[in-house]
Amino acid sequence: MKLQSLNDLLIKELQDLYDAENRIIEALPKMAEKASSPELRSGLNQHLEQTKGQVRRLDQIFDQLRDVDREDGKCKGIEGIIKEGEDLLKKDSEPEVRDAGIIASAQKVEHYEIASYGTVRTYAELLGRQDWARLLDETATEEKETDQKLNQLASHLNIEAKAA
Amino acid sequence: MKLQSLNDLLIKELQDLYDAENRIIEALPKMAEKASSPELRSGLNQHLEQTKGQVRRLDQIFDQLRDVDREDGKCKGIEGIIKEGEDLLKKDSEPEVRDAGIIASAQKVEHYEIASYGTVRTYAELLGRQDWARLLDETATEEKETDQKLNQLASHLNIEAKAA
Repeated sequence: MKLQSLNDLLIKELQDLYDAENRIIEALPKMAEKASSPELRSGLNQHLEQTKGQVRRLDQIFDQLRDVDREDGKCKGIEGIIKEGEDLLKKDSEPEVRDAGIIASAQKVEHYEIASYGTVRTYAELLGRQDWARLLDETATEEKETDQKLNQLASHLNIEAKAA
Repeated sequence: MKLQSLNDLLIKELQDLYDAENRIIEALPKMAEKASSPELRSGLNQHLEQTKGQVRRLDQIFDQLRDVDREDGKCKGIEGIIKEGEDLLKKDSEPEVRDAGIIASAQKVEHYEIASYGTVRTYAELLGRQDWARLLDETATEEKETDQKLNQLASHLNIEAKAA
């Protein structure tokens, strides 16, 4: 695929995000299963539902793009971040320390998405696709809110990890 | 390596960041070389010097940690993000579109680091290492400033990419 225009780059980034979101949908239940704090587990499960909604927003955009395969991306960034989180889950850990590690991994995922959705929203605006920009901004806002919620969870779960 | 305590997790994350920063030091010159905007190239080169300073801050922490190998981490997250950026540079692109893509990649790197330095700073504070927390906060602040600078660069380079 060539990148001759900002539109080409937008499509490439959207395909990467589509792959990223689907990888996150696979990863979240495994993270939730390994979480020992019920609050963290429920937060991860809520974010799973939210992520499915984010895929539906991307679907709304791809539905308008003929000749574009939404499944043609491979998001190596999120692949690496998720692998890093999975490696952490495999380690011999105290449950409270593992919870702190799960939050750290989840925040890396959120920040990747904050950067990436910020980028595609800007490209969509510049290309006069205000409808797409709105959809992408809704997701960007959700990712920032999730990062804030994780900060709040960390503020007391890290203290439990310290006491472990 | 076991993760029995928050201190173990802090060391693991610091080792990952040490590997991440060294991968970024290798990647930045390649990105700068492929940039066509002199302003973007100079921004990436400035960030390279800043990144070397960030490694020196991590060195100051590791110098105080006996029996810890600072080179024992492998940051799969940054490895993936950089690989994604390198793939983009290999594509047949208009120079202005490539510049927009380089900025997008660099912002993903910055956001990974914002998440990760935020995490280790918090762990250091909780563990009573205010000296480490200060060093890590200095880097976290630099990463946020770099992300803002990239936003400013994007605000006009994306318009050039649109006109490509």
